[in-house]
Amino acid sequence: MKTVSILSLFALALGLTAFTTMQKKKVVFFGDSITEAGVKPGGYVVKIGELAAKDKVADQYELIGAGIGGNKVYDLFLRMDDDVLSKNPDIVFIYIGVNDVWHKRSYGTGTDPDKFDKFYTAIIKKLQAKNIKIALVTPAVIGERTDSSNELDGDLNQYSKAVRNLAQKNNLPLVDLRKAFIDYNKANNPDNKESGILTSDRVHLNEKGNQLVAEEMWKVLKTL
Amino acid sequence: MKTVSILSLFALALGLTAFTTMQKKKVVFFGDSITEAGVKPGGYVVKIGELAAKDKVADQYELIGAGIGGNKVYDLFLRMDDDVLSKNPDIVFIYIGVNDVWHKRSYGTGTDPDKFDKFYTAIIKKLQAKNIKIALVTPAVIGERTDSSNELDGDLNQYSKAVRNLAQKNNLPLVDLRKAFIDYNKANNPDNKESGILTSDRVHLNEKGNQLVAEEMWKVLKTL
Amino acid sequence: MKTVSILSLFALALGLTAFTTMQKKKVVFFGDSITEAGVKPGGYVVKIGELAAKDKVADQYELIGAGIGGNKVYDLFLRMDDDVLSKNPDIVFIYIGVNDVWHKRSYGTGTDPDKFDKFYTAIIKKLQAKNIKIALVTPAVIGERTDSSNELDGDLNQYSKAVRNLAQKNNLPLVDLRKAFIDYNKANNPDNKESGILTSDRVHLNEKGNQLVAEEMWKVLKTL
Amino acid sequence: MKTVSILSLFALALGLTAFTTMQKKKVVFFGDSITEAGVKPGGYVVKIGELAAKDKVADQYELIGAGIGGNKVYDLFLRMDDDVLSKNPDIVFIYIGVNDVWHKRSYGTGTDPDKFDKFYTAIIKKLQAKNIKIALVTPAVIGERTDSSNELDGDLNQYSKAVRNLAQKNNLPLVDLRKAFIDYNKANNPDNKESGILTSDRVHLNEKGNQLVAEEMWKVLKTL
Repeated sequence: MKTVSILSLFALALGLTAFTTMQKKKVVFFGDSITEAGVKPGGYVVKIGELAAKDKVADQYELIGAGIGGNKVYDLFLRMDDDVLSKNPDIVFIYIGVNDVWHKRSYGTGTDPDKFDKFYTAIIKKLQAKNIKIALVTPAVIGERTDSSNELDGDLNQYSKAVRNLAQKNNLPLVDLRKAFIDYNKANNPDNKESGILTSDRVHLNEKGNQLVAEEMWKVLKTL
Repeated sequence: MKTVSILSLFALALGLTAFTTMQKKKVVFFGDSITEAGVKPGGYVVKIGELAAKDKVADQYELIGAGIGGNKVYDLFLRMDDDVLSKNPDIVFIYIGVNDVWHKRSYGTGTDPDKFDKFYTAIIKKLQAKNIKIALVTPAVIGERTDSSNELDGDLNQYSKAVRNLAQKNNLPLVDLRKAFIDYNKANNPDNKESGILTSDRVHLNEKGNQLVAEEMWKVLKTL
Repeated sequence: MKTVSILSLFALALGLTAFTTMQKKKVVFFGDSITEAGVKPGGYVVKIGELAAKDKVADQYELIGAGIGGNKVYDLFLRMDDDVLSKNPDIVFIYIGVNDVWHKRSYGTGTDPDKFDKFYTAIIKKLQAKNIKIALVTPAVIGERTDSSNELDGDLNQYSKAVRNLAQKNNLPLVDLRKAFIDYNKANNPDNKESGILTSDRVHLNEKGNQLVAEEMWKVLKTL
Repeated sequence: MKTVSILSLFALALGLTAFTTMQKKKVVFFGDSITEAGVKPGGYVVKIGELAAKDKVADQYELIGAGIGGNKVYDLFLRMDDDVLSKNPDIVFIYIGVNDVWHKRSYGTGTDPDKFDKFYTAIIKKLQAKNIKIALVTPAVIGERTDSSNELDGDLNQYSKAVRNLAQKNNLPLVDLRKAFIDYNKANNPDNKESGILTSDRVHLNEKGNQLVAEEMWKVLKTL
């Protein structure tokens, strides 16, 4: 009897392991240079793994970076088959928008607001057709001044509203980095600096920025 | 016997009529404001119809405008199901590129050269998958000065090269309006005027411009 | 004796008249299209005259418009001899900045922040060298949305700060239209409209806008 | 007799020396980053000195660089008192225009064509008022492709025409680098490369570029 029960337990354990393995969630972070850096040491994707480990659930997630520098929403659209769908993810975080605004200024090739909506929607529809869970992320900052005087603040607020509207309209969870970064800066940037609080260069994340993004995303990810 | 043979001839005639009807080629002109104006009186699409009539083949073509003001290559991509494929065309003229260049200056939302290629290629592939014949058209002018000093001449030359390369690479017929317009202006614009030769406002076609576009397109269309 | 005293009174009266005439303050409004429209019926310069009349001091002011559409700070610098100094004004309102920001987007020829400061300072110095009183005016709005999502809000806030700093640094009175317009819109634009509250087209003043500008300027003008 | 004649020769020598010293021409090269680099080893100003040495007239010239990176025509205007007039030059080469065109694209703060003319003219007038000789220089290249497809070719041609017109109108010598660079590239850039022929990065001069500029300028300088 003892032997049998031990074997049963062993079998049960094996079964549970198998079950757990099958439950491992594949999460793709789909974005631009911020996400490209996110999978490097200290990056936000790595830090999400650390947060999962702290919560003892690291083995439930496979975290995959799919960020390419300079990407705008239609770059994501053009490469989503190759870089996202091919990986059969369970969950995709769409984290885009900084270059859609920024490239208006730097290259003259930003994204029209209505086209931003259309391509973003097309991405959502294609992911939903595959039953992939989606979380939307607002673009955080281009400049950290707290008095609304960063050159592209107006547009960044507008495109962040667009992402919020897309989340609401499609009933999707939202990681509102735009709000989180502004709130953090209002509390921690008394000298109205352009960078150095959450970014190294007004756009790309420093250690604190990666930590904040990881925390905001983890809050959402663990509910999915 | 006689009756039979008359009936047979009648049947044959019916058959020929049906055959002719089936041969009527549906041609879609897919583009921007220039094409939107092209279907209005005096527009280039109307004038192609006149050229076909002069050649006694007007009844072989159904000419359909699908131009929307402000469109860039990815607008065409986004609306091609609704506005082109839904019409089951035999032939599509893709006439785009002016706004891809111009909007860099006016709105900061022009099209990156590599993205111009990618979306253009995606349109070609989708049309070819339906066995639709395609003709490519280079963007003509933004300014008619003949000494290469129109503000956007450099980019317009670059994007026209891209269209030529796409035609060659995909073995497609080309209507090289960029070349045709420059040649015409070199011969007919001795005062180096910005507009008034083939355009009314540096971009949109006047009567002569519509005529030139119609002639250049008709040369290609009647071979397809 | 009587004759003499009457003559004396007459001479005194003449003297007073002359004195009053000499006291009439010549005020130049130096700016862009907003000021160009300001001297037309219903314009803010006309309305300042009405406010002066209401306060029974209309005869103390000669109000002169010197606005030209499309002007930026260095246009003012280039034409200040011809259009301002030649008129020997007592007071100049410098009302500029919208195009310095806007033309970055529309023509690629906006004004660098440091150059905005340098030319603005050069104008101030030249006016001060002639003992002309100066009032500075912040650029009001390009878009009236109240949630900081007008495309150029960031830069407009930045250039308004520059004007405020110039006023403080040079100890000059300030008409802070940027602040006044935002405050007014927060109270009166509950639907977050782009235009129609104080402007007709996001930039140019409607009747209420002209009235607000006139009131804000009059508050400062009557103290000079 | 001998003593006298020796003394006479000595006096003559002294006189010649004094004469030579007084004749030494102070030449200021007034421009942007290209000129800032021009005074460094291998730079075009250094190479002009070498050409003067080869022609045995190096001691007749004092060559002074006054280039600052990023400068546009109105930067020259703003700093000409400090950086040019203060040095009492005999001759000034005005070599500007690349950033007036380029910054339209990169920062949205290029120079309007009419303002380019106005500030350029103001610089000429101020130099002429001091009896300083002036040579004008057209902006060379932003990109070295030979098929007129560099993004900013159109505008660069337009602003070069403006410089040529200013030279003609003011009867001033012209160093037409735009023409010289295009001619050189047509002969030496068979692969239609963007850079590497006369520039290192499409704009800044490599060794051959510095040599070409030096030769073109020396041709004019030695006639002044």
